[in-house]
Amino acid sequence: MDGFERRVEDKPFTVAGRTFTSRLIVGTGKYADFAENAACAEAAGAEVVTVAVRRVNLTDPTQPMLVDHVSPERFTFLPNTAGCYTGEDAVRTLRLAREAGGWDLVKLEVLSDPKTLYPDVFETMRALEMLVKDGFQVMVYTTSDPVTAKRMEEAGAAAIMPLGAPIGSGLGLQNPLDIRLIVEQSEVPVVVDAGVGTASDAALAMELGCDAVLMNSAIAEAREPVRMAQAMKHAVVAGREAYLAGRMPRRMYADPSSPLAGLI
Amino acid sequence: MDGFERRVEDKPFTVAGRTFTSRLIVGTGKYADFAENAACAEAAGAEVVTVAVRRVNLTDPTQPMLVDHVSPERFTFLPNTAGCYTGEDAVRTLRLAREAGGWDLVKLEVLSDPKTLYPDVFETMRALEMLVKDGFQVMVYTTSDPVTAKRMEEAGAAAIMPLGAPIGSGLGLQNPLDIRLIVEQSEVPVVVDAGVGTASDAALAMELGCDAVLMNSAIAEAREPVRMAQAMKHAVVAGREAYLAGRMPRRMYADPSSPLAGLI
Amino acid sequence: MDGFERRVEDKPFTVAGRTFTSRLIVGTGKYADFAENAACAEAAGAEVVTVAVRRVNLTDPTQPMLVDHVSPERFTFLPNTAGCYTGEDAVRTLRLAREAGGWDLVKLEVLSDPKTLYPDVFETMRALEMLVKDGFQVMVYTTSDPVTAKRMEEAGAAAIMPLGAPIGSGLGLQNPLDIRLIVEQSEVPVVVDAGVGTASDAALAMELGCDAVLMNSAIAEAREPVRMAQAMKHAVVAGREAYLAGRMPRRMYADPSSPLAGLI
Amino acid sequence: MDGFERRVEDKPFTVAGRTFTSRLIVGTGKYADFAENAACAEAAGAEVVTVAVRRVNLTDPTQPMLVDHVSPERFTFLPNTAGCYTGEDAVRTLRLAREAGGWDLVKLEVLSDPKTLYPDVFETMRALEMLVKDGFQVMVYTTSDPVTAKRMEEAGAAAIMPLGAPIGSGLGLQNPLDIRLIVEQSEVPVVVDAGVGTASDAALAMELGCDAVLMNSAIAEAREPVRMAQAMKHAVVAGREAYLAGRMPRRMYADPSSPLAGLI
Repeated sequence: MDGFERRVEDKPFTVAGRTFTSRLIVGTGKYADFAENAACAEAAGAEVVTVAVRRVNLTDPTQPMLVDHVSPERFTFLPNTAGCYTGEDAVRTLRLAREAGGWDLVKLEVLSDPKTLYPDVFETMRALEMLVKDGFQVMVYTTSDPVTAKRMEEAGAAAIMPLGAPIGSGLGLQNPLDIRLIVEQSEVPVVVDAGVGTASDAALAMELGCDAVLMNSAIAEAREPVRMAQAMKHAVVAGREAYLAGRMPRRMYADPSSPLAGLI
Repeated sequence: MDGFERRVEDKPFTVAGRTFTSRLIVGTGKYADFAENAACAEAAGAEVVTVAVRRVNLTDPTQPMLVDHVSPERFTFLPNTAGCYTGEDAVRTLRLAREAGGWDLVKLEVLSDPKTLYPDVFETMRALEMLVKDGFQVMVYTTSDPVTAKRMEEAGAAAIMPLGAPIGSGLGLQNPLDIRLIVEQSEVPVVVDAGVGTASDAALAMELGCDAVLMNSAIAEAREPVRMAQAMKHAVVAGREAYLAGRMPRRMYADPSSPLAGLI
Repeated sequence: MDGFERRVEDKPFTVAGRTFTSRLIVGTGKYADFAENAACAEAAGAEVVTVAVRRVNLTDPTQPMLVDHVSPERFTFLPNTAGCYTGEDAVRTLRLAREAGGWDLVKLEVLSDPKTLYPDVFETMRALEMLVKDGFQVMVYTTSDPVTAKRMEEAGAAAIMPLGAPIGSGLGLQNPLDIRLIVEQSEVPVVVDAGVGTASDAALAMELGCDAVLMNSAIAEAREPVRMAQAMKHAVVAGREAYLAGRMPRRMYADPSSPLAGLI
Repeated sequence: MDGFERRVEDKPFTVAGRTFTSRLIVGTGKYADFAENAACAEAAGAEVVTVAVRRVNLTDPTQPMLVDHVSPERFTFLPNTAGCYTGEDAVRTLRLAREAGGWDLVKLEVLSDPKTLYPDVFETMRALEMLVKDGFQVMVYTTSDPVTAKRMEEAGAAAIMPLGAPIGSGLGLQNPLDIRLIVEQSEVPVVVDAGVGTASDAALAMELGCDAVLMNSAIAEAREPVRMAQAMKHAVVAGREAYLAGRMPRRMYADPSSPLAGLI
């Protein structure tokens, strides 16, 4: 047990036909300025940055623009629908993004209430169906419920992005079992999105077999964001390699016939 | 809170006057052969390898010798007392090692019973005092009890090596609070020894502020030891950098005045 | 913090107008025989027993019948839809139950796949709407997602029954944060359903502020089911009273400005 | 596994020849007044109360006296050495108590520093040996280190009282594995002392097979102490009965050959 016997296949991280070497996706919009944002994306070794279309200036040249610091030539831009509370909102936002930048690989999130920032899976599913029909490649932010994840994969999602904990909480993975169940069943990539607070959280997500991790606050709100970006780069590699290497079995030193056996 | 306000000073990992760049110490004696052992020490980027003097051939040239694969020129050898159950045993063993290789930086472990492999802190303390009097620089394996750790530092230990979990269990850190209390009080380096099972365990140990991690089974018993050694190299760097970077504060999204506040 | 300042109101456990003293709901159908089932329901002090309409003989007098041991005069029967994989199946099953026993307080579960026994929230929502329209009082089994729970409450659910862990797993509450978020937002009772393995799990569920706990395997599969039923009776009272009493604040003895603060 | 196959013997809680029905020992000295203290001891169903000889007035009739509220006829008084920092201090304190009340069943604690209130196991061991020689029956407060516990049992301790977490922290059991290892090896009773914060913590301690639990702050510092005392009474019974009943096995629903197997 403990995965020892089973050789894990080392698949590249490929979403909608695009293959990435880095398995760490970083955010935009929470940094002191675009320069710090760019420095963190570099330090993280990221190839994909996700952009809140409604919050980040992508089109007004009279204002500071993200693209002047984080170049779309160097990074794959992943427009997201942060701030959208209905399916229609989300679809409208992503259509604007596609017109502006030609982006059709997108991240869908349809949130519910402003307190927990949990997704509304019903609205998300509706929006997903509209977007798929409209030709988008949709990476979808959802709860850690494996059945919902499966339904979204069946509806054409390009990647499943289960939450590890509430957005911006830094609490770490609250439900590793759910995340693992999603990994085992999915034929599209699984990317933990939201909840990572520090390096060991990111390593754990990768050890569960996820294909990648997306984070924003964990880097942007660290005391030294660039240093944390470097930490995260190493953490994601560490977790991935540990997953592929196959960890040692756990051993219980307490009497295996005792009630402790299941406790530790 | 969450350490956000406090800048952590980046001290080098210096034990008994020797400074190391790598913060990952690896073991010997559990590998398929010395060649695999050497390959893992390289892949881990280790500068220190610990050697069970009673178990590893250091002196008989008619048998395969560790030093032919893991060179004492390249790695600092840290002789240890694995297999010793009394203070006198431990002292005798380390004197032999010093005569054989000139090593005076040593790792003391005096175990208790063969089942849990927990240290006997009373015997360990006795042996520590003998060794210090005898001029050794002693890194000492102990429980995670902060008071015992303090007594050992007062008795002249060069480093405190609290256990994370039983040796060879791979269970991960069972008591992060104790480890952190030791880190806060210690003026000598703190090295988690025993219990690490996978990469996130090593990252967590470093995030608590430990100076280094020692591991043996986690690498030697992985399905692919060399790959796991690489994973651990990244994990230790990730945890150290995250510690220095200062993690984001945790946020509780549930009502902070509710009973949940303390639960998560 | 830790809920110390806030007085918690002691509300009775009232579902769809019926008030119960016991906050422990037990199952049927996993016991050696109906006699053991009845003994456990008694020992648990239960007032409600849930019955899998498709699996337990309620109508064929030529076979052993549950009602001959667990009397509908003494216990409130809560018919459930275990074994139903579509909304229509669930509705049909509960209509049959209503015709057979006049029961209109029911527990809806629409599962997804036979491996994890997780609910399908989309089918469950459809079935819930049909049943509410049809005049049933529906206690609904769902994931621990607070947004889904809110949608179900808005659709007319009489109680929300979030899963603690997969049915029959005995793993204990996997996501206390989610459960607590549901408790804070709900105006109908919240009953943890599935996942409890032992007494401390049940106590924890109640300490989070849930109104009740439902369990089946934890009692039926214990080595001594009747004794475990008694343990659970005490555990539910213990957790409820602790919730109402307001636990002591947690205190961190490590330096509060250190990274440990958020770790423990 | 999970203790299912092994029948646990139901032994009474007997310390130094005295048998108690209640397995919950409560403290004194943290309550608003002696009347509340007495009410909580009653509500907890306690038969033993532990008394800090240096802090509670046992002898001066011009001041309020504990014995006027908590009767030594009704409760077994267990004098303790709270506030003692050396072995000699502890011995002197307990001799005074024996002269005052004839008590020879005592609780020894020799603390180290005032911050963490951890015991000093070296001083504790010295004091234990003196007290045993002096004819006391000594229940000894110690760390959760199983080897230290064994040494104390060999030195004549009447009961081992490992800490669950720092005194007054309410953090719950930090190291269930250690506690369980102590339970498995001990031939004298094991009583978790310090660290319990709420009902589920107490239930968990008992589920590990401990003979009893001692608590002070968890009751005295609850918002409603008497109510919490009742909760704890039920929690200890729940945990004990669950231990004896033999919990259901845990089941992993994720692929057992996967790396998850050891994670949950």
